[in-house]
Amino acid sequence: MRWPRLTIIGVGLIGGSLALALKRAGVCTEIVGSGSSPASLRRALELGVIDRAESALGAAVSASPVIVIAAPLGRTRMVLDALAPVLEPGAVVTDVGSVKASVIADARDALGARIAQFVPGHPIAGTERSGVGAAFAELFDGHRVILTPVPETATSALAQIRALWEQAGAVVEMLEPRLHDAILAATSHLPHALAYALVDCLAAADHAGEMFRFAAGGFRDFTRIASSDPQMWRDILLANRDAVLRAIDSYDLHLGAIRDALRARDGDALLRQFRSAKAARDQFAQRYPAVAERSAAPE
Amino acid sequence: MRWPRLTIIGVGLIGGSLALALKRAGVCTEIVGSGSSPASLRRALELGVIDRAESALGAAVSASPVIVIAAPLGRTRMVLDALAPVLEPGAVVTDVGSVKASVIADARDALGARIAQFVPGHPIAGTERSGVGAAFAELFDGHRVILTPVPETATSALAQIRALWEQAGAVVEMLEPRLHDAILAATSHLPHALAYALVDCLAAADHAGEMFRFAAGGFRDFTRIASSDPQMWRDILLANRDAVLRAIDSYDLHLGAIRDALRARDGDALLRQFRSAKAARDQFAQRYPAVAERSAAPE
Repeated sequence: MRWPRLTIIGVGLIGGSLALALKRAGVCTEIVGSGSSPASLRRALELGVIDRAESALGAAVSASPVIVIAAPLGRTRMVLDALAPVLEPGAVVTDVGSVKASVIADARDALGARIAQFVPGHPIAGTERSGVGAAFAELFDGHRVILTPVPETATSALAQIRALWEQAGAVVEMLEPRLHDAILAATSHLPHALAYALVDCLAAADHAGEMFRFAAGGFRDFTRIASSDPQMWRDILLANRDAVLRAIDSYDLHLGAIRDALRARDGDALLRQFRSAKAARDQFAQRYPAVAERSAAPE
Repeated sequence: MRWPRLTIIGVGLIGGSLALALKRAGVCTEIVGSGSSPASLRRALELGVIDRAESALGAAVSASPVIVIAAPLGRTRMVLDALAPVLEPGAVVTDVGSVKASVIADARDALGARIAQFVPGHPIAGTERSGVGAAFAELFDGHRVILTPVPETATSALAQIRALWEQAGAVVEMLEPRLHDAILAATSHLPHALAYALVDCLAAADHAGEMFRFAAGGFRDFTRIASSDPQMWRDILLANRDAVLRAIDSYDLHLGAIRDALRARDGDALLRQFRSAKAARDQFAQRYPAVAERSAAPE
């Protein structure tokens, strides 16, 4: 599939990398960038990530068959509202937000019946760096992109967005939106909350300086995600609030079981829990080998 | 400093790597290995990690000026009890356990006044692999070894063990035993409990298969330590029970603050917590760059 034009709203790490991946594939004649930061757009032009910059949304989406909303999650609602009056019939809109049910609700509100033109999406890729300067064409290679269509989604729209991501190097999968949000709450949003809480806990401790000084490699790995963008994670947690709260509650029970066993000096119970966790983690590592080292933060 | 002989009780990853590091430094004429597994000792001999294997503890420590207990933490008490009747005057004993106060209490019980000959130690190094086959001479290079002497510790004994670890490539530091245990509880024992709890939580969830399937790089880093040896971690948590329980309680408060802010949809409070965590984590990564990638598990 080829496109004469593609509009990316929000040319940061994700939007910029998608532009570069599609240029690499040679499937898009012109990539138009839009967004709230003129400096970012200028930089994207200079870097050759986009072919044209349009601050005005109407000009940016004019005669563009595919529009990708890659703005921060907290700004998606605003972008959808601004897009609604200028969206042309037949254009397909997709997004890259880490939470899907709330984005879908916003899209329904903003687009009404034109929700059929909207394909909710979430590429599971990224680095701890952000901004168009960090974008690179290989970001999505072999990574999963989850699309979470709703019943109204036009099959032609879905087929286009699937083709788009496949051309960008990704492996496309489908999930029901609420299941997507529950899975991401447990595997991504919860771990970020846990890592932030651990670092906060240490920073507030007596002897905090010594704590960090003597921290070992396990601590480094465990807390790497606490270096992620605080605003982005605030927005993700708020957007996926209910699923994240459920995940925290479920986590509390499992940590509580370890605490109770330790209080009771019940070594057998501890061993059972650790063994079952190790077995699950080892199976995970074996079945899903690391895609690439670049998903880890550069340090 | 040079030693005509050195005895290592428990020739696994740590004991074996110490032997190889001292051989590399050329500071030890004969390294004697002892331990409960004849097969392990044979393998250590075959690999050239030790020069002589002695199953009987008396023969192993005879005329040996330095004895390193590198058995699993859960077996340290038993080793100390067996060592007491055969320990020669003037010999220095050290250990490598991840918990110090409980080992010191055991050493006092077992050795009585000869506690002066005992130098409690803890090398902060390791991999998720174990056994003598995983040992390598560079394991301690640039890594910290914490010694936690007690008031009775003979200064000459302390000086010998310090020299031993420095010859093995490590950076030696001193800490009060209870402070060591509090620091390790917060930076190592707690994160292991958290990682085990997270993987258990996911494995028990509805759609567990999909959870692991869609888990991203952050989850991989975050849960790597859940692949660690369950028995070892049961023993460490039990040995450091009180400090770990305090760390879990403190952690609960910080995770609870995130949960409460999320419940209340208080984005400002979330942002404050995440920002302070990111600042602390970034400062940690900057001040203490990763010593070596080998501290991460091979996958």
